[in-house]
Amino acid sequence: MKEVLRSDNSEIDNIINYLTENSGKMIRPRMVFLTASMSAHDPVMVTDAAVAVELIHLASLIHDDVIDHAMIRRGRESVNKRWGNHASVLTGDYLFASAFNLINQHGMQEIMENITTTIRIMCAGEIKQMALACDLNVTEDQYLEKTYGKTACLFASSCKVGALAASMPSEYVYNLEQFGLCLGYAYQIIDDLLDFLSDSSLLGKPVGTDLLEGNITLPVIHALRNNEYGPWLRALLESGELTAQQIPEVIEVLIHSKAVEASLQSSRQFIARGLAYLDALPASPAAKELQHMAVYMLETYYQKLNQYKHPISREVAQ
Amino acid sequence: MKEVLRSDNSEIDNIINYLTENSGKMIRPRMVFLTASMSAHDPVMVTDAAVAVELIHLASLIHDDVIDHAMIRRGRESVNKRWGNHASVLTGDYLFASAFNLINQHGMQEIMENITTTIRIMCAGEIKQMALACDLNVTEDQYLEKTYGKTACLFASSCKVGALAASMPSEYVYNLEQFGLCLGYAYQIIDDLLDFLSDSSLLGKPVGTDLLEGNITLPVIHALRNNEYGPWLRALLESGELTAQQIPEVIEVLIHSKAVEASLQSSRQFIARGLAYLDALPASPAAKELQHMAVYMLETYYQKLNQYKHPISREVAQ
Repeated sequence: MKEVLRSDNSEIDNIINYLTENSGKMIRPRMVFLTASMSAHDPVMVTDAAVAVELIHLASLIHDDVIDHAMIRRGRESVNKRWGNHASVLTGDYLFASAFNLINQHGMQEIMENITTTIRIMCAGEIKQMALACDLNVTEDQYLEKTYGKTACLFASSCKVGALAASMPSEYVYNLEQFGLCLGYAYQIIDDLLDFLSDSSLLGKPVGTDLLEGNITLPVIHALRNNEYGPWLRALLESGELTAQQIPEVIEVLIHSKAVEASLQSSRQFIARGLAYLDALPASPAAKELQHMAVYMLETYYQKLNQYKHPISREVAQ
Repeated sequence: MKEVLRSDNSEIDNIINYLTENSGKMIRPRMVFLTASMSAHDPVMVTDAAVAVELIHLASLIHDDVIDHAMIRRGRESVNKRWGNHASVLTGDYLFASAFNLINQHGMQEIMENITTTIRIMCAGEIKQMALACDLNVTEDQYLEKTYGKTACLFASSCKVGALAASMPSEYVYNLEQFGLCLGYAYQIIDDLLDFLSDSSLLGKPVGTDLLEGNITLPVIHALRNNEYGPWLRALLESGELTAQQIPEVIEVLIHSKAVEASLQSSRQFIARGLAYLDALPASPAAKELQHMAVYMLETYYQKLNQYKHPISREVAQ
């Protein structure tokens, strides 16, 4: 990744070095690798496709941080905090251009089509969803539509890109894309739960940040629908006076209204649906690893981050 | 352009409609068209390449306006002023992705390589040059290096893309690229002069904005070198107390120190050098139009915007 991003000036290299020092979970490039590994493939082409997908993810994170004035990313100062908005917007653009440049070197026209379309969906979706911020009547369908643009479409694209880079037959490509899509939904739901249930030190941001910023996620949608707790939560959110001090109370409501349980259930269903797409493909070590990745997300990632807190939600998760 | 950008959601379509209502000078797509017109070409492919180049220019303007908190663009509210930074950053990304998507539809691998590399240069150059803001020791060479990333490389790319889209032989491609490069330098120098010499209503921003923002352009570099006026200007700029009220005085200094004349001379030299590259190619109506475009920039665009003010600089321009 560093090699692809090398420039002839030290200013951008400093930022790139900082970014690549702390690489995150690398879920998306791993998906590219694993899907491609289910079939014979050119390792250089697949590596470059995986790097390109991670660059696009990184670019969108940097731009998101500028937009949200985020000070922390992956437990460290964000690029905008350290180098300012100017350098951050440009670095994001630089990463996008580098990703396309890399894909183009292999003449992977179908992959380029998929990735550019995915970015259009991500951007258009995010702009559309800005209108839904703070809307307490947002439905589960609207939440899923938002999640599609925010997370699921790039997960789907990562799997599709891996399958295309390995020149798989179209029914394999379809199944893997659907697997990625389901995994993306499941992942985002878990991420939205952890925003309430994990620890701020593990999250790298204060607990309840999403809700404080007006992002109405699935557990909140479920809790608002609850006869017993919904009216209290609605009144609190409508008052516009929610503060970080009230988040622990909100969390109790999410647990007792079974909103956490219902959201986890949704995530589980997506994982199950994704695994079914995978099961339809021939068994292989790579397919097994993809399966593990999906199960890990729910059973390990979620429970690990959540294990020291909220015994009720831990029970639910089991 | 509108057709390429159409999405299935009204939020982004509103922004796109606003952007395309007021189209600007369209210099870059015209360069794509005219260079391609010097040879046989597929008009659909060339149109798409021209649209892609304008989309990239538009995306970079939108991102620049977010960075600079610009309120006005092309005489109207900027996208960030009207829709906020969030939507602006995303709209820029959407335009970039749309441009690459469009180029990819024709499988124009060489064009994609050129454009993605150009964007990398633009971004890396701009990040590098941020360090030079307010640096009163910036040299003419450093100014030209900045201008390369800011303007000249996309002008060069526009001509090269047109030539590549028309499958011209490599020596034609080279000459046209060099022509675009020279035109880009000439254009930026004129633009930097007009920032001082034109009218705020014609500029769509206050006179002297560049200098007030710490952007040391060619006329200022020349004036700083002048024995008589340089020390006064340096002291003023070093004091960090430059205000809009002092800009008329600075302008007088730029004129009397012959910094305006020297800058215009540089611009003229670039135009002459660019025209020489064009002259080496076979005569054609398109080549003639490219020639007109270059001459227009200096002789009409500059003088027209500058004609109601500063008789001294008008004389110089003649």
